[in-house]
This record gives sequence, structure tokens and C-alpha cells, in this order.
Amino acid sequence: MQLYGEEIGSRLLLGTAQYPSPQILAEAVKTSGTEIITVSLRREGADGAGTGFWQLIKELGVKILPNTAGCHTAKEAVTTAQMAREVFGTNWIKLEVIGHSDNLQPDVFGLVEAARILSDEGFQVFPYTTDDLVVGEKLLEAGCEVLMPWGAPIGSGQGLRNPDALRAMRAHFPNVPLIVDAGIGRPSDACMAMELGMDAVLLNTAVAKAGDPAVMGAAMAQAIEAGRQGYAAQMMERRDMAVPSTPILGMAVFD
Amino acid sequence: MQLYGEEIGSRLLLGTAQYPSPQILAEAVKTSGTEIITVSLRREGADGAGTGFWQLIKELGVKILPNTAGCHTAKEAVTTAQMAREVFGTNWIKLEVIGHSDNLQPDVFGLVEAARILSDEGFQVFPYTTDDLVVGEKLLEAGCEVLMPWGAPIGSGQGLRNPDALRAMRAHFPNVPLIVDAGIGRPSDACMAMELGMDAVLLNTAVAKAGDPAVMGAAMAQAIEAGRQGYAAQMMERRDMAVPSTPILGMAVFD
Amino acid sequence: MQLYGEEIGSRLLLGTAQYPSPQILAEAVKTSGTEIITVSLRREGADGAGTGFWQLIKELGVKILPNTAGCHTAKEAVTTAQMAREVFGTNWIKLEVIGHSDNLQPDVFGLVEAARILSDEGFQVFPYTTDDLVVGEKLLEAGCEVLMPWGAPIGSGQGLRNPDALRAMRAHFPNVPLIVDAGIGRPSDACMAMELGMDAVLLNTAVAKAGDPAVMGAAMAQAIEAGRQGYAAQMMERRDMAVPSTPILGMAVFD
Amino acid sequence: MQLYGEEIGSRLLLGTAQYPSPQILAEAVKTSGTEIITVSLRREGADGAGTGFWQLIKELGVKILPNTAGCHTAKEAVTTAQMAREVFGTNWIKLEVIGHSDNLQPDVFGLVEAARILSDEGFQVFPYTTDDLVVGEKLLEAGCEVLMPWGAPIGSGQGLRNPDALRAMRAHFPNVPLIVDAGIGRPSDACMAMELGMDAVLLNTAVAKAGDPAVMGAAMAQAIEAGRQGYAAQMMERRDMAVPSTPILGMAVFD
Repeated sequence: MQLYGEEIGSRLLLGTAQYPSPQILAEAVKTSGTEIITVSLRREGADGAGTGFWQLIKELGVKILPNTAGCHTAKEAVTTAQMAREVFGTNWIKLEVIGHSDNLQPDVFGLVEAARILSDEGFQVFPYTTDDLVVGEKLLEAGCEVLMPWGAPIGSGQGLRNPDALRAMRAHFPNVPLIVDAGIGRPSDACMAMELGMDAVLLNTAVAKAGDPAVMGAAMAQAIEAGRQGYAAQMMERRDMAVPSTPILGMAVFD
Repeated sequence: MQLYGEEIGSRLLLGTAQYPSPQILAEAVKTSGTEIITVSLRREGADGAGTGFWQLIKELGVKILPNTAGCHTAKEAVTTAQMAREVFGTNWIKLEVIGHSDNLQPDVFGLVEAARILSDEGFQVFPYTTDDLVVGEKLLEAGCEVLMPWGAPIGSGQGLRNPDALRAMRAHFPNVPLIVDAGIGRPSDACMAMELGMDAVLLNTAVAKAGDPAVMGAAMAQAIEAGRQGYAAQMMERRDMAVPSTPILGMAVFD
Repeated sequence: MQLYGEEIGSRLLLGTAQYPSPQILAEAVKTSGTEIITVSLRREGADGAGTGFWQLIKELGVKILPNTAGCHTAKEAVTTAQMAREVFGTNWIKLEVIGHSDNLQPDVFGLVEAARILSDEGFQVFPYTTDDLVVGEKLLEAGCEVLMPWGAPIGSGQGLRNPDALRAMRAHFPNVPLIVDAGIGRPSDACMAMELGMDAVLLNTAVAKAGDPAVMGAAMAQAIEAGRQGYAAQMMERRDMAVPSTPILGMAVFD
Repeated sequence: MQLYGEEIGSRLLLGTAQYPSPQILAEAVKTSGTEIITVSLRREGADGAGTGFWQLIKELGVKILPNTAGCHTAKEAVTTAQMAREVFGTNWIKLEVIGHSDNLQPDVFGLVEAARILSDEGFQVFPYTTDDLVVGEKLLEAGCEVLMPWGAPIGSGQGLRNPDALRAMRAHFPNVPLIVDAGIGRPSDACMAMELGMDAVLLNTAVAKAGDPAVMGAAMAQAIEAGRQGYAAQMMERRDMAVPSTPILGMAVFD
């Protein structure tokens, strides 16, 4: 998978919030095999408040995708992104412009505006968006080369609330990397996203809040790989009427 | 996982029908890592008609679970099981008593009857059953030590049509190995079965009829392992209202 | 709709348990327009304990379908049915043989046995059964002329857990009255049952435990009628790809 | 229900496209009891091309809600709305700005822009929108007093693809009339929309393409009323574990 020209092996992107401890986060990063983690500037702190956390992150040896979590306007997100570039030394930015504090959905208007400004400033934007095709097109026009549609509200663990809409995105944007971001709660959710042809999955709470985050990190990685392989190997059609799976007719084929 | 006293590593059981060729079947057996394959006596033939197939099966080095596919009465199934014991040299038998040619559902009356007779004769019965708790109890009383509830009609690939019923089975039979048999179409279906706490998954058509059976065999194995690990690691609760997954509040935990 | 030779106008059958008061039950019976109510002998009491309730029931002027609620064996159900015939003066009996106290599912073995005994004694049996086709056939062989498959566990309000299984029943038993019994929680559940081609719906908790049972009784009656009409009028096919509903092409048709 | 100050009795709004004949449309309008029908200016024709259709519409004696079906830009929609006001003599306009020809989804950017322009010109706008809360807010700011979120793509008959999103809209906009527009295929879909607390349903294909549109019109009207009453009467909670609906404990209540 290529993301802004970089070859990425793992199709699991991992958030770094809400873990019981930094050590457990470090373990989950390792078991999951992720190559990209998202980090909130707000937590990290531009003033170096979270020095210990920062040190830990660097030692993990994975690529950092700073995010603008907690920003509610385009302006705020742009400023946060600019600070993040300073702090983390990367043009990559996961762009979140939150529209509602309840469901943490994107504000698609602010999102497109901020994406345009940041792209013009040389950022490589990973926009957290809805499953709206028109919004997707606007983001591409604004300069984005990756789209990150939600599966369900952040932290809800509801899985894919509207698989058909994701399927439509895949059909419309065959050559754009699509990463499901938010809503994944279980390995089967992640697996299903990949079966729909998504390129990757970004998740956080499902691992951080699992009983055993390290084991869950590994489970998610496997589920994503399973879904990817299933998609690649062409899954059977679901059939309304049952047919025997061990017919006598099948004999001739073998002998 | 223990099945009739035998320790089994892989939680994927694979059917052997409907593959494009015996070679592709052999590949799928390997990539899936399965340790148990089901074989139909009817295909194999008591008269040695399918000698080549039989030879292939033996070379795979996996445990054979003969089945009574195609039997529509208890009597027919019992006779088929007895012949299978002769041919395959094992007490294991996957017991199918088909009740309807349309949906290939079990005839639960014939099933319990045949299970009782076969158990009395020293067979170790793996009954293909519905998700009915009372039927499950009768099968245990009849001597079965494993239950194999369906997910959906054989060959339909519909996945789990009634996950709540499987959940109820898990709750009622905490110490009985439960293997979802029939209906699995996609890796995410298999993953979901394991997340419900099932012990294993038996599938056939989903691999045999995939575009690339060998790759799909591997995908299924991964999905099953992912679901198992997810179950073991305790998945987060789904939440109706979204909550932020990168709260500033989380900071204190890390520093 | 004909049930054992009697012409019934309303396709809603109503249970009589769990209402806040007998008066509210009486109101719900009226608003729902039901012509058949089920009554538990156990509540009513063979000894006339519930005289007030009995009096109320008689004044409602609807047909009574006594039930064997609370019976866990065929024998118990048969005895209860015999007592109910004495008390209520009808050959009709809603036969419940409960298999599990958790999910209140039918014990299909005891059910078929009791159905045979009661049919032989001249009862007209309405069996509360699962959505198992083979069990359905056995019940018809035992003398039943109506089948009452569950939608979900009694009192759960989960709606139709396995619509495909009900669809299969409709296809297999085109000429047998099918009444969904148990699990209905909302008007849309009842509507959906009728859209699948069911002949009627029996419900209780959804009305009795509604905020306003009388209004809910009316709502259920409308929903059932709506679903019936929808089924009769042939609903459009669901389409995967959207098509415009106001095409300019349509013009020519009108002019 | 009040829509822009007008009291409307029926909660079913009906589209007028795709009927087998104008006579059948007229019948469906009557059986459905609708008080508002949507009409496409494009079909009707500003030049009076569809005179017969126009005459028919007037004779139906229902309120006309002209729509901008087929418009793909804000500008086009505004011009069409202005022409519609001339032709139909009403400030009401159902605003459609189509973003994609495949799924006929709204272009939320063009929609908000057109809604602002039209509201400023004195139109009373009924915007066909997605289930995006932020878009909903922008439309209210633009002057809309009604929102019409989609259930699924126009003409797909898929029902409600994302009920949780509609539920969130209801919670966020407690005092704004919400009308589900597009996607309804069956009476139970319409019923479910009302159970979620929607104020009304607008549909077209489900009636026009039914085997018998007149009967389906009546079925939809009943389903909508059933769902509305169910919502008003407070539906029972769905329960995970089954509970008996005819407990002996209930007795005391009645006597």
C-alpha cells in the first residue's frame, strides 16, 4: 500500500490514546505490527509537557501521523497542524474537524476548507471524513490523496453502520487509498471493512479498552489480513437457496 | 481444543467437496493449516471407486472425519457411518441426517435417534444440528460430546443467520465444544462465530468456491484465529453514544 | 383467514397477561380489534380463583384460545389442555411445551408428542413452535392445521431474529396458516412478519408493557393490516444501485 | 404536523413519477390519503407540455410541493425553483441538488448554497439531505424549517440504511419537522422511520412500482400511522434475555 508515495506494509493504523499505561501501549504497537501510529498534539503538548510519552513514541520506531483531535473549526485545525509539523517533523497530518461533540462526526465544510489550506501549505492530509461521495470528491480536489471515512462514531465500537456507503466509495474511488477510521469495535468489524475492499483500518479504542490490549492488537492485525486476503481471493456469492456442498456429482471432477 | 480426548491445534475444520481439482484441495488443506478434514463416504466409495482421491487424502497427513452427507434417514445414516468406520478406520463420524433437500437442514428427530444408536456402538459423533438448545441437550444425552450447530443453510454462504441463538448455546453449554458447521461464506463470518465463543468452525464451500481456494484457506484460518483472540482478550462494549477516543483527560495516565 | 374451519377477520391474536389492570386489557382488546385472545388456565384457575378475570373475558365477546403456558412436559401440557377444555368449553388449544426457562423456547420433541395426543382426542391444536421445517412437518402429520413459529424468545421484543427461516416456512407450507407467535416488540416487527407472507401475528408483551397499551393495540392492528396489504400488493424489489424516481423519461407515459 | 405554518393531517407525502398511468396515480393519491404531492417541473414543463398531467394534478385537490429533481448544481436548482414558483404558484420547494448520478445522493455543498439563496428569496425550502447533523444545522441556519434526510438512495427501496443516524437527528433537532425522503421500499420501512420519531415520510417508487399502487398507497398510509402511534404509545424495550409473558405472578394484579 502506498500512502503519499511511501510504501507501507501493515494495513493497521493505531491510535495511542486511552491505554491503561504507556507500557501497554508499547506492547500493543508491537503485537499489532502497525507501522503508523496517530498522536494527538494536544496530549503530547507543544511545550514538551508529555516528554516521557514522546520519548516512548520515538523508541517504538514507527511512523507518526499527528492528528488534530479536539479541533472544532478549520482555523483551529490548521493551527494545530502547523504546530504538529514543528513538533513531529512530518508533513503528514490526520485532519479532524469535529462537527458535533455528541457523535464526534466530521464537520465536512470545515474539513474541506482546512484540507485545502493545509494541502496548499505542503501538508499531506489524511482527512477523517464521512462516507459521503461528494465530500470525498471535494477532498480530492482540495489536494488529499487518501480518504478516511468513518465506520461509526469515534469510540462507539459499533462497527460499520453503513457498509453500502463504503462499498459505493470503493466503486467511485478505485485508485484512492481508503482507510476506515473510527467505529471499529471487534476483529470481525475490521475484517469486514477489508472485505469491502478498503485499503486499511485505523483504530484505537477497540485495542486500548480491550481486556488485554496486546492480544487485541494482534487479533486486529490478523483480522485485517484475513479480510484483505478474502477480498483478494474473491469470496463466494451469498445464495438465497441452500445447495448441497457435498454432492455426488462432484466425484467425476476428481478422478 | 479437545475433541473426544484428542488435542487439536487448528480451530478450522475443512470439507473436501467441490474443489476445482484435487491439487487445489491439497493446497487449501495446507494453507489453511487444518488438522481435520471431512470426507464423504459416498464420494470416496466403499468399493474403492475414488482410489486416487483416497490416496491424496492419506498423503495430506491430517485427521479424517468421515461424514454421512446425503443421508435422509437415521437408518441410512447409521449404515453409512458403519461403512465409513470400515473404510476410514476411525470411530469419528460427522453425523448428517438431512431433513429437507431445499435448505439441507438437519432432521433433528432422526439426528437424535441416529446419534444414540451410533454412540451405543462406540462411535464418537459430531452431530450437524440446528441452534436449538433442547435438541442440543438431547444430543448430549444420546452420548455426543461435541455439538455442531449450523450458521446458515449448507452452501448458502449467508454467514450467521441467528447469532443470538448461538450465543444462547454458548451460555447453556459452557463446557461442550461447539463448532459452527455450514453457512460460513466470508472470513468475517468465521471471525464472528469465534467472537461469540464458538470453539471452532467447519467450512467447505467458502473455500472450495472462492476465486483462489488456497488463499481463501489461509484467510479463513487467520480470521478464526483473530476471532478467537478477540474473544479471549475481551472486546470493548459497543456504545450507543459516541465518546472521544483521544480525550485530553487521558494525558495524566501517561505521565 | 380460516383457522380450523372458522372464518376470522382480524389477523392479530392477543395475549392477556401482564397488563397494568383488567380494564386496560379490556381497552386494548377493543382498540386492537382482535377476535381471538389467549388465556392461561393457570392464571384463570380451574378452581375459579380468578372469577373476576373470567367474567371480564367473557364480556369481551371474543373467541378464547386457552394456552398451556408454563408447561414443561408433554404430559403436563396434555393434562392442562384437558382441564382448559372443561373450563373454557372449546376444542381450541394453544400448545406450549417449554424447553428452557431461559429463552422459553419450545421443546420440539414434547411438542410433537403432545400435539399427536391432543389431536387424537379431538383438540384443534395451535402449536407454539420454532422455525424448523422438519418440526413443522411433524406437527402437520400429528394433526395440526395451523403452525405458530416464534419470531424471537417470548417477552424479548426482539422482533424477527431469522426472517429467512420464516420465509422458508412460507415457501414450504403454502396452504397452512402460519401465525408468528412470540418476539414481536414493535409495530414494524409485526408489519415485517406480514410482509413475509405470514397469515397472522400473536403478541402480548408488546401491548401489555407499552406505555399506553390501548394505543399500542391499535398501532399493532394497523401495522399488521399494512404488512398484509403490502404483501398482497406486491412490493418493489430492493435494488442495489439507486435509480432516479423522477426521470424525464417518465413523461411520455402520461401524455 | 405543522410545515411552514400549515397544518397537515397526513404524514405521508407522495411523489408522482413512474406510475403506470395518470389514472393509477390519481387512485394512489386517494387511497394513501396524502395531502401533499411532489411534482417535477421538468416533467410538467414550463411550456405547458404536460397539460393533461397538470389538469389531473389540480383535480386531485392536494397541496403541491414542486421539486427540483434532476438538478445537479445550486444554480440550476435555483433557476428551476424560480420557474416552479411561477408555474405552480407556491413558495414551497423540495430542493434537490444531486451530487452523483449513481446513488442520487445530495450534494450537500450545493444544497446549503441553494437553500440560502432560495430562503432569501422567500421560498419555503424542503431540502432533500443526508443524515449528517452538521449539514442539518447549516440548512437550518440557511433558513430551512424542515429537514428531509434520506433513508437510502432514491429508488433503491433499501429502507433505512443507517437508523442510528436518523435517531441522532431526532435527538439533535427535537423541534424541527423531519421527513424521511427516499429509500423506503416496504410498509415496514415507513413504519420504522416513524418509530424513530420522524414526523413524516415522503415516498414514490415504492408505491408507483408496486404490483398494485392503489393498495400499496393505503398500506403505506397505515404503516406510517402505525409507526406514529407506536412511537407515541412508548414501545417496550427489547430484552436480551427472554422472560415469560404469561407468568403466574401476574395473577394478583388482576384480582
